[in-house]
Amino acid sequence: MTLTSSPIAVADDPLPSWNDTAAKQSIVAFVEKVTQPGSPDFVPADERVATFDNDGTLWSEQPYYFQLAFALDRVKEMAPDHPEWNTQQPFQGVLEGNLKAVMAGGKKSLIEIVAATHAGMTAEEFEQIVTKWISTAKHPKSGRLYKEMVYQPMLELLAYLRANDFKTFIVSGGGIEFMRPWTEATYGIPPEQVVGSSIKSRYEVRDGKPVIVRLPEIDFIDDKEGKPVGIHSHIGRRPIFTAGNSDGDWAMLQYTTIGRSPSFGLIVHHTDADREWAYDRESHIGQLDKALDDAEQKGWTVADMKQDWKVVYPSK
Amino acid sequence: MTLTSSPIAVADDPLPSWNDTAAKQSIVAFVEKVTQPGSPDFVPADERVATFDNDGTLWSEQPYYFQLAFALDRVKEMAPDHPEWNTQQPFQGVLEGNLKAVMAGGKKSLIEIVAATHAGMTAEEFEQIVTKWISTAKHPKSGRLYKEMVYQPMLELLAYLRANDFKTFIVSGGGIEFMRPWTEATYGIPPEQVVGSSIKSRYEVRDGKPVIVRLPEIDFIDDKEGKPVGIHSHIGRRPIFTAGNSDGDWAMLQYTTIGRSPSFGLIVHHTDADREWAYDRESHIGQLDKALDDAEQKGWTVADMKQDWKVVYPSK
Repeated sequence: MTLTSSPIAVADDPLPSWNDTAAKQSIVAFVEKVTQPGSPDFVPADERVATFDNDGTLWSEQPYYFQLAFALDRVKEMAPDHPEWNTQQPFQGVLEGNLKAVMAGGKKSLIEIVAATHAGMTAEEFEQIVTKWISTAKHPKSGRLYKEMVYQPMLELLAYLRANDFKTFIVSGGGIEFMRPWTEATYGIPPEQVVGSSIKSRYEVRDGKPVIVRLPEIDFIDDKEGKPVGIHSHIGRRPIFTAGNSDGDWAMLQYTTIGRSPSFGLIVHHTDADREWAYDRESHIGQLDKALDDAEQKGWTVADMKQDWKVVYPSK
Repeated sequence: MTLTSSPIAVADDPLPSWNDTAAKQSIVAFVEKVTQPGSPDFVPADERVATFDNDGTLWSEQPYYFQLAFALDRVKEMAPDHPEWNTQQPFQGVLEGNLKAVMAGGKKSLIEIVAATHAGMTAEEFEQIVTKWISTAKHPKSGRLYKEMVYQPMLELLAYLRANDFKTFIVSGGGIEFMRPWTEATYGIPPEQVVGSSIKSRYEVRDGKPVIVRLPEIDFIDDKEGKPVGIHSHIGRRPIFTAGNSDGDWAMLQYTTIGRSPSFGLIVHHTDADREWAYDRESHIGQLDKALDDAEQKGWTVADMKQDWKVVYPSK
């Protein structure tokens, strides 16, 4: 509910941080045709579902996912209670700042880090940990709070869609409970409209108080073919608008747009090494290869960050 | 969006089908105090989450859950393609109208029936099957369409809460995809605000068309201690208002009200054998025993159907 629409800006130009290029024009043309009563492309308000990837689509994701930065910070904070971590990978690598040693353990290491930092507490405790981190942790390169590394043009797009009676959802490979504590204040997206990866949890009563306990076991991975499944499970209808930035969003783009008309697929292409980062086909984080190849044939709109966005981040 | 609020009724008396007894008075008092700016019990609009059980709380559930009636109808409709069912339980029992033989197989039989009738098709196909059934199938005793056996006082309660900026959710042990096709038209609750039990599903492309395929494997049971887990997973915040009618709602009532203030727990007590059914402690369907014992001590409001409701079903 912060950072979002000012009514005047919306009335005047709904997307003031977008240059007046093809990307912006196609977004506006789509929104106008689906909201125009009597138009053959009119879509009733309750079917205007829009889904957004988070990492690399709504906020930055370099040099590695911000949730990993959170996890590494947690390891350091928890280390005094875990002397064994000093000689035990992947934790030793984290504590020594040797990310190469951490990554050498592959997926297994990441799961160990997630289990140690994301499970074993109640949902409420985890929410407090995330809230504290997101309010204070800063990105080493930009010096901004991580939550200030959201994309101003995308905030405007979210607000523009909502002003046109779209319901906006996040559908991210990131952890659902890592996002929910701050998405409402940051994006105007309430917890119940956040879909993400999850670990299992259990209901119990502790000291007379009902709690949800977070368990060290993966429940659902909301990435690639998981995204349409997550959308189906949480939302129960196909979106008509989807935005992503990597091949992890390819299935969601396909699910949203193929054989579904009217529909809109948007790809954020990271082309701006000066203001943000430039990466696509070869990147380990946010690899964009197949979706970039397919965009033209599938009718997906590519937003070129350098060319199409007047600014990247909100002014502080 | 049908059957729900008429603005005049809301202005006049928000709950016209409720007698002016303690149950109604306590509901109104709760809504007024949490929506009154400046009140010590004021709750911001975006935290006004209300969750409703479905079977026995929003519509009837006797002589057995309506979803079971749907499944039995499906078995009969599918039988011509399954000659083996004539000599194979539990299907033989269904086809011969011998429910005792079906039930003799216990949970295993029910899972077989669910797998045969609820899985193996796409989500879209299942939605069409449910939509057709719910539009035409009638209850043998009342002669009404099943979807007309919803409780008028509860429709008014849903509308009253929404008029006061509550977000209303269903949290039911029933199948999430069995409910979603009709909850918006019937209750004003859109698919994304329905939480229920689910089977697993998979995303794939069939004949160039993206589809969600329903798999014959239980994913999640949204009952008892599962309800708080389902709420946590789908909604991501604790409700302040919950309505249920059986011990299956006990954990949800506890999660909503214990150590959470202000909060409201409502139990629909089936006491009206003339207009609906009368059952509680000994019933196999919708057993209400522990929650009835605990209601007074926990501060949960019991709505006595016979005493507190002027009408049960909407006039046709």
